[in-house]
Amino acid sequence: MIQQHLLTGIRVLDFTRVLAGPTCTRMFAECGAEVIKVESGPDGDMVRKISKFRGNDRSLYLIQQNLNKKSVCLDFRKPESIALLRELVAQCDVVVENFRPGVMAKLGLAYADCKAIKEDIVYCSISALGQSGELAAKPGYDFIAQAYSGVTSLIGERDEPPYLPLLGLGDVSTGVHAAFGIAAALLHRARTGLGQYLDIALLDCYYHYHEAAVHTCSGTRGAVKPTRSGRHFSYVCPAGVFRANGGSIVLIGFLHHWADLCAALGRPELVADPGWATDQVRLAKVDEVVGMIEAWLMKFPDIDSAIATLDGHGVPCAPILSVEQTLTHPHFIERGTVRTVHDRLAGDIQIPGMPIKGSTYPANNDYVAPLLGEHNAEVLSGLLGKSEGEIAALTASGVLMSAAS
Amino acid sequence: MIQQHLLTGIRVLDFTRVLAGPTCTRMFAECGAEVIKVESGPDGDMVRKISKFRGNDRSLYLIQQNLNKKSVCLDFRKPESIALLRELVAQCDVVVENFRPGVMAKLGLAYADCKAIKEDIVYCSISALGQSGELAAKPGYDFIAQAYSGVTSLIGERDEPPYLPLLGLGDVSTGVHAAFGIAAALLHRARTGLGQYLDIALLDCYYHYHEAAVHTCSGTRGAVKPTRSGRHFSYVCPAGVFRANGGSIVLIGFLHHWADLCAALGRPELVADPGWATDQVRLAKVDEVVGMIEAWLMKFPDIDSAIATLDGHGVPCAPILSVEQTLTHPHFIERGTVRTVHDRLAGDIQIPGMPIKGSTYPANNDYVAPLLGEHNAEVLSGLLGKSEGEIAALTASGVLMSAAS
Repeated sequence: MIQQHLLTGIRVLDFTRVLAGPTCTRMFAECGAEVIKVESGPDGDMVRKISKFRGNDRSLYLIQQNLNKKSVCLDFRKPESIALLRELVAQCDVVVENFRPGVMAKLGLAYADCKAIKEDIVYCSISALGQSGELAAKPGYDFIAQAYSGVTSLIGERDEPPYLPLLGLGDVSTGVHAAFGIAAALLHRARTGLGQYLDIALLDCYYHYHEAAVHTCSGTRGAVKPTRSGRHFSYVCPAGVFRANGGSIVLIGFLHHWADLCAALGRPELVADPGWATDQVRLAKVDEVVGMIEAWLMKFPDIDSAIATLDGHGVPCAPILSVEQTLTHPHFIERGTVRTVHDRLAGDIQIPGMPIKGSTYPANNDYVAPLLGEHNAEVLSGLLGKSEGEIAALTASGVLMSAAS
Repeated sequence: MIQQHLLTGIRVLDFTRVLAGPTCTRMFAECGAEVIKVESGPDGDMVRKISKFRGNDRSLYLIQQNLNKKSVCLDFRKPESIALLRELVAQCDVVVENFRPGVMAKLGLAYADCKAIKEDIVYCSISALGQSGELAAKPGYDFIAQAYSGVTSLIGERDEPPYLPLLGLGDVSTGVHAAFGIAAALLHRARTGLGQYLDIALLDCYYHYHEAAVHTCSGTRGAVKPTRSGRHFSYVCPAGVFRANGGSIVLIGFLHHWADLCAALGRPELVADPGWATDQVRLAKVDEVVGMIEAWLMKFPDIDSAIATLDGHGVPCAPILSVEQTLTHPHFIERGTVRTVHDRLAGDIQIPGMPIKGSTYPANNDYVAPLLGEHNAEVLSGLLGKSEGEIAALTASGVLMSAAS
């Protein structure tokens, strides 16, 4: 056997769409697992309709989330399709789905159905609010789970409505949580022979982000009610977002960093000054502290020169880069934090790199994303032993579907 | 062998502190792996000094992040300590560390050192900006990586400095990424016999959150420059944060949800009205759309009644719960999204639940977090075969350290 990557030899039947589920199965695909993306025809994954920025019918969103997967597209309304999917379950180690709770059961493909086909299947359901509980049936989006989780309540000014971060904080992290759960279940299967059902919810994964807010509220028996506090930390000072010449930076000058910051500021006398020496006294006059630091930052001609001076004194700091700035940043390119992939239809595009960087296998930027139904024949022939004639008949009758993008 | 949980039988030597690394090893510990938390004496993990909300010396932060781990505390300045740690490496499957790059090498415990002791060791380094690249040596905190990643730039109003979400978005997600990488490497070891070095960085994991911003900027060759856009989505409408009576809610009324929202609003005529019918025309007058919806929301006596009406029409929506509200919410308690654990010193406290919910093992809320050095004797006796006399001598000479909290 050719040992190509960490998860070579594992086969995943992937019913997922959009972001959370596809992130999970992409982690597997990028680690060399064989991931068969099952798409409901005629349209397939709904993200195939968006992000067509290259003047043709190719979705860049689809590319980013589906590298190295195979696509099989079937008309889910036809019983022959479900029969084929059940045959595929028998050939797979893992099933992943992120439909609204109950949909897979209606299709006859719930965990119990799949377990009856393959006793040791590892089956992972991903949802917004979970498979159980009073909120489970609500229509779920990333920001719905985020709002319930208390995360949204911690972003913005105390006395104003909060902000939503405009990216996939919940979906991506949930996909990675699911990938860990599945890998752990596969290690368990190897030891015990047992399969597993996993119920992974955005709500639970968002809640997992709470570093100190939950135990602080509970530990103080509600005396401390965690909430948002603007652009600066509420329990140490200085730390947060500071205005500089041409934009903003993040700067941390609390605890032992205060002395380094004072040196950078040319104000060594403030290290021991009782009016400035501790986080507590600085917190009591946070506006004055921030104002002094921002006045100093404004003396630099730009952000880079201010950062260089802070770096020289060992003060933790960072420019707040725009997404555009990251695309050409040498550190991002050298590490593969951002990578360029070549798509057959869309050409070269940049997407986030695979964040799991192992020593045995180099980063693979040659992965490609599938066209809709591109692997119908390969999968049905290779895994299910269907003949050319059978596959042609399934295509003619509309069970198998495909498209040129 | 008693098969207690998914990862029973795996042994992890855990050099991590604070949040990202401890999240990774806690995922293993909560799945039944034996995690030996190695702490540098005399203080141990620096979070033992904070979050003492129960009137004694116990850190709630430490509890939350270190359930079901064993603590061994050594004076890292003594060569005997390093010799003992090298003996422990030989007995473990996994080593995890989140020091600043280079620290483990100075201790003589870099990957190459550990590989020489145990050829197939899986070794994971977690850092803010990575082990390589021009930024690797910078002091790293969660928000430093976040600012570089472009994530911060997407939160807040377009023409104002952005906001930092005040929780562990980067650390927690990075810990879970690392846990997946380690589990994948263990599956690989089982298949090939090979070990692995993993370089997991907050920067890469933060960048992984970019759902569409990177490929949109790259795909349009810079014509679209993704940035923050306040409380509402910039490419569909309505979707975002809306003011309601007594607070704010998240509401989604784009695409096919528009018809449901119009029904809820009692404005069915707007479904087909060319001035309102599409996301494009609504985006062009987003203030008017938001104003109409907020005026309607204000007619309800409170948020719950507005949410109930929206739920009745199938409109995706959520109250923006405070952290305090989540602690008593029936859905959170039923699912174990929030859980109560009992600590020997701190008593009952609530913390986020384990987000990996599997069918074979019930949620375990009986896990406890270790006192500093609590397992010195157990680990040195059980794994290294040290005698009572040897352990007493190591304690007397200050190699082994401990504390009562």
